[in-house]
Amino acid sequence: MILTLSCPDQPGIVARVSALLFERGANILDAQQFDDEETGRFFMRVVFDPGQADVAAWRDAFAPLGEQYGMTWQMRARGERRRVMILASQQDHCLADLIWRWRQGELPMDITAVVSNHPASTYPHTDLHGIAFHHLPITADTKPQQEARLWKLIQETGTELVVLARYMQILSDDLSGKLEGRCINIHHSFLPGFKGARPYHQAHARGVKVIGATAHYVTADLDEGPIIEQDVERISHRDHPRDLVRKGRDIERRVLARAVRWHLEDRVLLNGRKTVVFTD
Amino acid sequence: MILTLSCPDQPGIVARVSALLFERGANILDAQQFDDEETGRFFMRVVFDPGQADVAAWRDAFAPLGEQYGMTWQMRARGERRRVMILASQQDHCLADLIWRWRQGELPMDITAVVSNHPASTYPHTDLHGIAFHHLPITADTKPQQEARLWKLIQETGTELVVLARYMQILSDDLSGKLEGRCINIHHSFLPGFKGARPYHQAHARGVKVIGATAHYVTADLDEGPIIEQDVERISHRDHPRDLVRKGRDIERRVLARAVRWHLEDRVLLNGRKTVVFTD
Amino acid sequence: MILTLSCPDQPGIVARVSALLFERGANILDAQQFDDEETGRFFMRVVFDPGQADVAAWRDAFAPLGEQYGMTWQMRARGERRRVMILASQQDHCLADLIWRWRQGELPMDITAVVSNHPASTYPHTDLHGIAFHHLPITADTKPQQEARLWKLIQETGTELVVLARYMQILSDDLSGKLEGRCINIHHSFLPGFKGARPYHQAHARGVKVIGATAHYVTADLDEGPIIEQDVERISHRDHPRDLVRKGRDIERRVLARAVRWHLEDRVLLNGRKTVVFTD
Amino acid sequence: MILTLSCPDQPGIVARVSALLFERGANILDAQQFDDEETGRFFMRVVFDPGQADVAAWRDAFAPLGEQYGMTWQMRARGERRRVMILASQQDHCLADLIWRWRQGELPMDITAVVSNHPASTYPHTDLHGIAFHHLPITADTKPQQEARLWKLIQETGTELVVLARYMQILSDDLSGKLEGRCINIHHSFLPGFKGARPYHQAHARGVKVIGATAHYVTADLDEGPIIEQDVERISHRDHPRDLVRKGRDIERRVLARAVRWHLEDRVLLNGRKTVVFTD
Repeated sequence: MILTLSCPDQPGIVARVSALLFERGANILDAQQFDDEETGRFFMRVVFDPGQADVAAWRDAFAPLGEQYGMTWQMRARGERRRVMILASQQDHCLADLIWRWRQGELPMDITAVVSNHPASTYPHTDLHGIAFHHLPITADTKPQQEARLWKLIQETGTELVVLARYMQILSDDLSGKLEGRCINIHHSFLPGFKGARPYHQAHARGVKVIGATAHYVTADLDEGPIIEQDVERISHRDHPRDLVRKGRDIERRVLARAVRWHLEDRVLLNGRKTVVFTD
Repeated sequence: MILTLSCPDQPGIVARVSALLFERGANILDAQQFDDEETGRFFMRVVFDPGQADVAAWRDAFAPLGEQYGMTWQMRARGERRRVMILASQQDHCLADLIWRWRQGELPMDITAVVSNHPASTYPHTDLHGIAFHHLPITADTKPQQEARLWKLIQETGTELVVLARYMQILSDDLSGKLEGRCINIHHSFLPGFKGARPYHQAHARGVKVIGATAHYVTADLDEGPIIEQDVERISHRDHPRDLVRKGRDIERRVLARAVRWHLEDRVLLNGRKTVVFTD
Repeated sequence: MILTLSCPDQPGIVARVSALLFERGANILDAQQFDDEETGRFFMRVVFDPGQADVAAWRDAFAPLGEQYGMTWQMRARGERRRVMILASQQDHCLADLIWRWRQGELPMDITAVVSNHPASTYPHTDLHGIAFHHLPITADTKPQQEARLWKLIQETGTELVVLARYMQILSDDLSGKLEGRCINIHHSFLPGFKGARPYHQAHARGVKVIGATAHYVTADLDEGPIIEQDVERISHRDHPRDLVRKGRDIERRVLARAVRWHLEDRVLLNGRKTVVFTD
Repeated sequence: MILTLSCPDQPGIVARVSALLFERGANILDAQQFDDEETGRFFMRVVFDPGQADVAAWRDAFAPLGEQYGMTWQMRARGERRRVMILASQQDHCLADLIWRWRQGELPMDITAVVSNHPASTYPHTDLHGIAFHHLPITADTKPQQEARLWKLIQETGTELVVLARYMQILSDDLSGKLEGRCINIHHSFLPGFKGARPYHQAHARGVKVIGATAHYVTADLDEGPIIEQDVERISHRDHPRDLVRKGRDIERRVLARAVRWHLEDRVLLNGRKTVVFTD
């Protein structure tokens, strides 16, 4: 079982939580805490062997404590797989990589659908076998309708996490709001540097010596959502923008994959505009 | 207050520890646990606001629990500075860096002495002002006597940690044993590659593309002690051994400084031939 | 056109080479030299716009100079794609990644065949469409016969480079010798650390804090061939060997891909037991 | 001898340059070229054994070629040490590190002076012995006068390179202009992210997962000068701004030291708003 929680800090939280787990026969396997001295907020992730009780029983048992401390909390079975929808566009390196890692068993999720504004034939080399594919084209005029169809699909499929795998479309404020804390985007720059379009070309023009990518939760405030993970690679004056794009694909793939895996393993907790990431 | 402990894993440890802290008015500020599924051993580090009680009172309060669970444990005041002796030889980049960081306030320690097999005049540019300096020359013949003097000095000065800052002398099995878990060495290679002498020349001869350095606890088994920290840097065919030595100085400095700081902050716990490092 | 050469160093080589190119209407686009002061050997890579002449004409023009200076040299058209055979075994992450990059246009090569000691059904999710696949099972008893079939296949297909993409079979001295300088292996450790089998388990047992992978040319001397590229990733005490294997897959993929791309672009020159790599 | 040059690209430059060197008895030890296809500009750095002729003779010999091709060029003896002035302020980690590396022999320069807006007593632990120190206090009102004194000092001491080692004062447009291409600043962020004041606090507030530092040439356009070198380090949610400042000191030290060394070895060529860096 994995328990994550955050609440205003006060003495005794760890004692109360661990006592409750112990009394009900659980054994703590891993636990990490963080006390944000700036905001006075406390964050915790506990992995425990739940004994006989199932997740519903554990939720019932924990609820009063959660209430008492004003916690935002979540209890999930370790083996439970999240339902994930992947949105893609023309370029498929992030899509292909996520599917590959999923087939390898690296990502504990069920893929509810792959959705693209391009047809499935755009991805002839990615094995979409056994995965629902939806082609939802979009234009400036049809954006509201397309998003409505998308939202309907998210609801119908019970999608818990939406991954923008280089989707290249900006979600409306409305949809961003509905997906708060459960929509991950990969931005192909080392934010906050090079916001906006064509970041590799911006990076080339500025002559930086290191490029990067950023995985973040989507918010209405474009490129300003809470950052989950970033990574970088060295470049040199010899690198043409097309080389940056190539090197960037590698960074984007691994940064997005890490962020998605951490989210699926309940390692990422929201802390206002920031995240607490209990890495492995 | 900082509490670190390790013991055979069993259910209820976190609950018991956190309850004890809470009942006595402590507030947990940071806590990390690790359960080694291979060895069945449990490791924990807790930082807490101790309220009114001093460290002696806390030790008394904790002792019965430590006994009951068969814990190896330690309780120290956060502000307490460890007593550290630095051993150096001809090259002084690690010595100079440690002293510089200490003067900057990065390393919470008191320097009991700098000991070298070379005279103080070897280090004209390092500010040794206010630091006891001992010149203990050594030859193959005088090694036992020199080590006896060194050990006497360690005892007389109440030294808790010995840092081999490129000391270049191999401690005897006897002295290594006496300093188990409290003597840190910096090895100028990415262990286990290039054990033994002149690792940068070995690396150059082998044509590796990355070099590194390793900070580890000293054991009688040369270059085999528990590793605390490692880091690396890229090199190329253009790098002459003298370039590797130069680049290596930078890696050695930062790897050793990190290992020493983590040790001083009680972040490093021994786990057989390995370490558990609760990094910040 | 790409010209690479190595020879004993002597004054005037650059002048003679660049004069010859200029006189025949070429324009140098990129050039890198390296003078190994240890061995007295000179290395050069020149990329030039060849004007009207084709590769045969350029080879004829260059041959006398190559002869005069005792050069090992090679002249190839930039657009020419090398013929590459990929050998794989049970695990297919390197195989899948190479094919993916090839389809993306990152690797300028033609794949002559994928050869495995397992049947094609081992790789249901890798798009092998349009690629010749050969199943060459191997046992201790049939190794000579299998290698004979493999060598025949290499010859018949005009294969110029063989990539061992986690092939997990040790080539015989004989075959290693035949493929000298044109067979790249990915070793899943940071050589020379953890040679031999199960390096991630070795790394876990030793408690290192960084793991890596190494791409090298295959020689009869196992794990001792000239290193082309290495890269690393940080790990912690929390990482189980299965986590090292997972993290390792990422390192192996990118290290092997870089080494193959550099080889295909004639950036890697042999320098005895080492390599000169003119990176981009 | 080290020759660096840049000019509009045209066929034959390498041939002409290398022929000239060969005819006069030089032997090329190292050479790197770069052809910027965007700007059509060609860059070259050649290290050669000059034979009998001195630097003046080589300059005379080269001048006609430089003229003919419209080159910006420079010829310097390898052993020649540049005259460098270091400007510092309250924090002295970059100052101390540069002096330490200089005393180690890592930086081939003569220090003409250390200038600070604080008195020498600010740096009790840095060995300033044998180095001229000038205390030039500055206020908003006295800035023009202070800069006038600074400029006079630069001229009188024959200073060729000015290093802003966390000087924390913005040079006027006028002085920036006078020092174009020979004044290096270290900015404590990964530009272009977090321009302006207190970048570590900005980084903390934004919740980035990687921080960095940037060494660049100073221009009138604040934080927009040509970037020479950048490097980064991972951080986590546990890092308080004071931790970022501490980690940042390490990044700043090594980034600035690399940039200064590369400048001193004539490895950095200006390319408009960018740099070409022929790294070792």
